[in-house]
Parts: sequence; C-alpha cells; structure tokens
Amino acid sequence: MLYYLFQYLDEMNIPGAGMFKYVSFRASFALMLSLFFATVIGRRIINKLQQLQIGETIRDLSLEGQLSKKGTPTMGGIIIIVSILVPCLLLGVLHNIYMILMLVTTVWLGVLGFADDYIKVFKKDKEGMKGIFKIIGQVGLGLIVGLTLYFSPDVVIRENASHIRTEAVATGGVAAERTASPDLKSTRTTIPFVKNNNFDYAQLVPFSGEKAQTAAWVIFIFVTIFVVTAVSNCANLTDGLDGLATGTSAIIGITLGVFAYLSGHVIYASYLDIMYIPGSQELVVFVSAFAGALIGFLWYNAYPAQVFMGDTGSLTIGGIIAVLAIVLHKELLLPLLCGLFLLEGLSVILQKSYFKYTKFRYGEGIRVFKMAPLHHHFQKPGDGSVKALFQFPKTPVPESKIVVRFWIISIFLAVLTIVTLKIR
Amino acid sequence: MLYYLFQYLDEMNIPGAGMFKYVSFRASFALMLSLFFATVIGRRIINKLQQLQIGETIRDLSLEGQLSKKGTPTMGGIIIIVSILVPCLLLGVLHNIYMILMLVTTVWLGVLGFADDYIKVFKKDKEGMKGIFKIIGQVGLGLIVGLTLYFSPDVVIRENASHIRTEAVATGGVAAERTASPDLKSTRTTIPFVKNNNFDYAQLVPFSGEKAQTAAWVIFIFVTIFVVTAVSNCANLTDGLDGLATGTSAIIGITLGVFAYLSGHVIYASYLDIMYIPGSQELVVFVSAFAGALIGFLWYNAYPAQVFMGDTGSLTIGGIIAVLAIVLHKELLLPLLCGLFLLEGLSVILQKSYFKYTKFRYGEGIRVFKMAPLHHHFQKPGDGSVKALFQFPKTPVPESKIVVRFWIISIFLAVLTIVTLKIR
Repeated sequence: MLYYLFQYLDEMNIPGAGMFKYVSFRASFALMLSLFFATVIGRRIINKLQQLQIGETIRDLSLEGQLSKKGTPTMGGIIIIVSILVPCLLLGVLHNIYMILMLVTTVWLGVLGFADDYIKVFKKDKEGMKGIFKIIGQVGLGLIVGLTLYFSPDVVIRENASHIRTEAVATGGVAAERTASPDLKSTRTTIPFVKNNNFDYAQLVPFSGEKAQTAAWVIFIFVTIFVVTAVSNCANLTDGLDGLATGTSAIIGITLGVFAYLSGHVIYASYLDIMYIPGSQELVVFVSAFAGALIGFLWYNAYPAQVFMGDTGSLTIGGIIAVLAIVLHKELLLPLLCGLFLLEGLSVILQKSYFKYTKFRYGEGIRVFKMAPLHHHFQKPGDGSVKALFQFPKTPVPESKIVVRFWIISIFLAVLTIVTLKIR
Repeated sequence: MLYYLFQYLDEMNIPGAGMFKYVSFRASFALMLSLFFATVIGRRIINKLQQLQIGETIRDLSLEGQLSKKGTPTMGGIIIIVSILVPCLLLGVLHNIYMILMLVTTVWLGVLGFADDYIKVFKKDKEGMKGIFKIIGQVGLGLIVGLTLYFSPDVVIRENASHIRTEAVATGGVAAERTASPDLKSTRTTIPFVKNNNFDYAQLVPFSGEKAQTAAWVIFIFVTIFVVTAVSNCANLTDGLDGLATGTSAIIGITLGVFAYLSGHVIYASYLDIMYIPGSQELVVFVSAFAGALIGFLWYNAYPAQVFMGDTGSLTIGGIIAVLAIVLHKELLLPLLCGLFLLEGLSVILQKSYFKYTKFRYGEGIRVFKMAPLHHHFQKPGDGSVKALFQFPKTPVPESKIVVRFWIISIFLAVLTIVTLKIR
C-alpha cells in the first residue's frame, strides 16, 4: 500500500518518494522487512503455540536426539505466511496480476496446511486431513492458477527472438518496449538445450489449428496441477530435519527471483534467450519477502529447532515455489532446481515400491535406503545393522551437518540451473 | 587459462567456445568448480592433516562440547586457497590487473597464515608467529595493493555523473563507453548519504593542488594498510565457532561480487550512482571462486566441524575481503557489510579495556561480556554465574544455532549495505 502512497507523494515532488518506483529498492526493503518481522513476531507466536501445546506427534524413528524434539511446537508456518503477506501488502504493486496470484496462493495453501495441522494436533489424528481434501485443495489451486493465466488479459509474454535484443541494445531498451514482437498468450515454457530454449505444450498435441491451442491450454492446466501437487508434497517430505526445508526453499526462491528479474527485463531476457514476461519483475518483491520470511524463520528453526513449520509451512512454501515457476514459464527447470525435493520424493517412492516388490517376489521385503525420506538415511549407522541396499555412509552424520550439506547441494543446483540456460 | 584457449577456438568459429567471453558464464562456472573441487580435495587434505596430527591447541573455555573439538585438524584454509586458485587460473582473464592483485593477495596471506599455523602446531608455540612478522606481512600487502592501484595504468575509474546515464541509456551503453567522462586515477571512495555517494580522501588534506593529490594517495595507502590489517584480524577473531567465519565470509564475498558486477557495467554503475570501474567485472569471477571455495569448505567445516581453517584460512579470507573492498572503492562500506566482524573485534577490545579500567579504578576487574569474542558470550549461562555486565541470554545458545543466527545477521547487513546506496 505504501507503493501507492509514495506514488502520490512522488507526484507532489516530495524528495525520496521516487525510490518506491524501483523494484530493486522495494525488493531489498521487502527482504529486510520480512526477515526482521519474522524474527520479531516469531518469538511471540512460538510462545503462543507453546501455551496452546501445539506440539507435533513425533514418529518414533529411533534416531539419536529424536526424543528431544518432543514438545517442540509446530504450525510455525504461520510465522512464514504472515511475514510474507505483510511486506507484500505494504510494498507490492497490488494490482499486478502476478502479485495477486502469489498472494492468493500463499493464503489458499496456508489455510489448507493449517487445517491439516489443526486436525493432527487437536483431533489427535496422526494422519491429518483426509487425502482427498488435500488433493482437492491442491487441484483447486492448480485450476485457479492455470485458468487465470489463460483468461487474464494482463498475462502475456513476448517472443524471445534475437532481433529484440539487437533493437533493444540499439535503442537502450526504451524503444524496444514498443518495437518488440506483439504480446502473446502462450503455452510455451523454458527448457534448456533446445532451440530458443523454448518448448511449446502445443507440440504434444497431434493435430494443429485453433483446437490445438485449446488442447495445449488443457495440457498446461494439467501440468500446473501436477507441479503444484508434486512440489508441495515433496517440500512436505523434505521437512524432516531442523531447518532443512526452510533453507532449501530460501535458496530455490532466490533463484526464481533471479529468473523473475531477468524475465521482466527486455534486454536481459533476450540476452539469456528466455521469454520476456512484462510485469513479472513485480514477483521479485514477492520472492524477496518469501526469502526474507524463510531466513527469519530459520532464526528459530535452525538446529536445534524451537519450532517446526508443520504442513502450514511446508505445503505453502512448496506451492509457492511451484506457482512461481509456472508463472515464469520455468516449470520444466524444477526437476533440476528443486533436485533435492525430487530426490527426497523419489527416495520414498523407491523405498516403498522396492520393498513391496521384493516382498511379493522373494517373500522378504528389502529396503533400498536405511530409511526414507533420504535425509534420515544419513542419520542411521551403515554397519549393516539396518538392512538396506545402500549402506554408505558408515557412521551416522549429525543432523546439523546433513542440513548444511543439503543446503550446499541446493546452492550448487541453483547455480547449475541458471548456467544451463547459457549453454548452447 | 581456458579463457585464452576458448578465445582462440572462438576465433576459429568452434561453436560454443564463445561462452567463455561472458563474465556471467565464467563466474557461475567458477563457483560450481570451486565448490565441487573443495569438497573433493577436502576429504584428502583432511585425511593428510589428520595423519600429520595437525591439531589445534584448544583454549580451555569450559564450554559445552568443547573438548570434543580436540584433535580436529586445523590448517584447512589450504583447501580454501587451492579451491580459489585453481578455478581462477583456469577461467580467469589472467592479464586483468584486478585478477592479478587478488591472486597475489590470496597467495601472500595464505603463506603468512600458513607460517603462523606451522609455528603453532610444530613448534608447539601457542602464540604462533611473532606479532611483528604478522604485521610486517599485512603492512607489506597493504603497500603492494596501494602502490599497484597508484602506479598501474590499468587502474582507472570514471566519474559517476548522471549525464553518463542519460547518454548510456540513450545509446544502449555501447556508445557510452566512448562518450563517458575520461579515465581518472582517483582517491575517491563510495560512501552512502553524501552527494554523488562519493568521498575523496583529498578532502582530508588541508591544502590543495598537485601536492594534495599526492598526499591523498599517501592517506589512501595508509587506509589500505589499516583495512587489510583490521579485517584480517577480525576475521581471525570471528573464526571461533564451527562454520562461523566460513559462512559469514561467503555472504560478504557474494555482496562484494554484486558490487564488482555493478561497478564494471557502465549503466548499472550510474544507476546506483557509484563510480564506473572498467575491468572490475573480472573480479566477479574471482569472487565466485572465493564464495564457492568457502561453501565447499563448509561441507566439512559445518557443525560439528571435521576441520578448522586455522590462520591459513582466516587471515587469507579476511585479507581477500579487505582488498576486494579497496579495489572496488567500497572500503568505507565495510563497517556495515562486515558489521559482524567489527562487533567481534570491538567486543574483544571493549572486554579487555573495560576490565583493565575497572581493575585500575576499583581494584576489581569487571567484564562487559560473559566472554569475548562475542560468539562465546552466547554459549555461557546468563544466570549470574559468570560475572559480566551483559547477562542476556539466560540460557546458553547451542553452537550450531549461534552460527546460523550470525549468518542471518550477515545476510541482513549485506542487503542493508546494498540498499544504503539507493537511499538519497
């Protein structure tokens, strides 16, 4: 809201008010504000949660130091959500379609995750919300996002043909705004190593013409639903060690923020040969608030954690990452960028299916990992005391070290994701 | 060296070879390479250090979990140094004056720190190198850097007058290279909140004319020596908890990398109203290798640490940060950007001098902190069992959490430092 106030003040020529025009300024300010806000309200919310005895039912995994986690309050995701919303409402351009979509996503998934946690904690139902409701919630969000992108007149991209760059450089990016290729509704998405870094979902349709475009949009909406569901569930699985999902998501978020900044700038977008998405630079403000909220939450969530994010947090941050990627047409980069989430998810699927298969085939179930999701695998000794195909590492790795190492891997993947776009 | 190879290949029109022209590509590649390299050689070097029994003599601070640190090998800074040098030699433009200066700094301080550690470990002399040699080493480096900046014809800046921007935008930055103000040797430095964000050391000289310029350079060289000495000693003090100096320095390094990128680009430099420093973009490659090396080192240095960086590491990374800041004319931003280093340093000075003063004045020495440097203060109980002015916090904070929180503070300070330049 301050954006509008300062716009007004700037028109009155109040000195300094002009700074709010700049995305870079509002974004940096949003990051600092959300970080600071999260640490300040964090303390209060944690105390409140403790009073209400909102503790997580801890699965007994016979892991070292695990019992000390008992009684740690959960639902800390509330801290993250509030710390995203406040700076965005203050500093964001609230009529920007992308900002609106992200705020809706945050609130929608926040409510869904909160309901899930609420049932777990107060109904003492360890399973939480019935799977069907969770899926309806996630599919519903996918529909909202997909349909908004389809119907909103504000959502357009411009072709990333190299002639824009030539013109843009020659005219300093100013005239390029006008002379660039026309606004398009598009089902194209960015994917490395192919021509123009572009892939169009329409290519999956066996026929062509106007019907093909409609079919491509249907495919796109299904992709959206799948991505939202997959990423938010994987984030949920990743949230098993103190600070793991928090830090990893902050790194992924910042990378998507870089994409948002580049996509919203005509010269950079053509330089990286990715599509130019007018208005997407406003997402940088959102991402900054997102990253700041996570980093601030980490203040309490770092090992040893004083609070867990719960499904309130993990479903929300997973969904935010998914929707960000979709809006930026970068969803096909997620397997690399969110490689760690993917590994965690795959480790669970692999563990379960291989166990079932071997049980069916040989009468005795065999595990692939000492434990799934993957992060717990490293907490178990590798001396054969736990039967599993993979025994490495021999000695258990301390929780705090697994977490930092997973962060390091995320940083590596983030840089790799950016680099892939330049390789051709 | 690959830079020259690919330049040659590009001239022969080999596809793909052109990528090495781009600083962004070489920088991302350098970061990934140094990170990967550090984790790979790290394991071997740690084993070697363990064989040679290069353990640190641990001060007995009666802190929890402190004895478990005994036997942890030190001198891990070797891992950092090698992981900086290899990617820079491979991917850097080795005739760039700034790259040369940084490589000299790295090797110079690496040798100094190594000698210090060597004396500590093998001569069993807890004090290490005699203070006078350390200071000679640091002053020597300050002289090398200051004089190189003074004499090298490659080291110039261009004024950050707003007319450059107007022209640069109008001509797309291409013609601006030619039409901008002439190359200058300058003792100006960037400082926020003042006109043009500039401060000239010549303003400290009470007279003017050509002599004043020479005097300003003498002041500048003294500033250089002071900054190098101060930052490397503060980094040394900060290196007291697992991963603390490593992570903090990576964050500071990345921020300086942002400044290097912006300073080397005529449009961004004028947009931020900082001086344009041709050639400084090559520092982005160095900084990427620096950050990658630190992040890779963190793989082993994270709590609980398998290796310490020793003076080999802390003196070197402190010095690198100092020289980077000086070369970029951003040394007056260091108190903010390296605020954490500063606090650690001040806490020691404050602790010692207040203790001496009260002892002299009242016969009994009184401590300000429960322990100095500051990070140890948080490890002690605040129930009055340790006599000190500051008792907060009541309960000791676990080491891993202090470290992550100090990182978070560093991130906040880094963003704040960038923002100050936009506020006017």
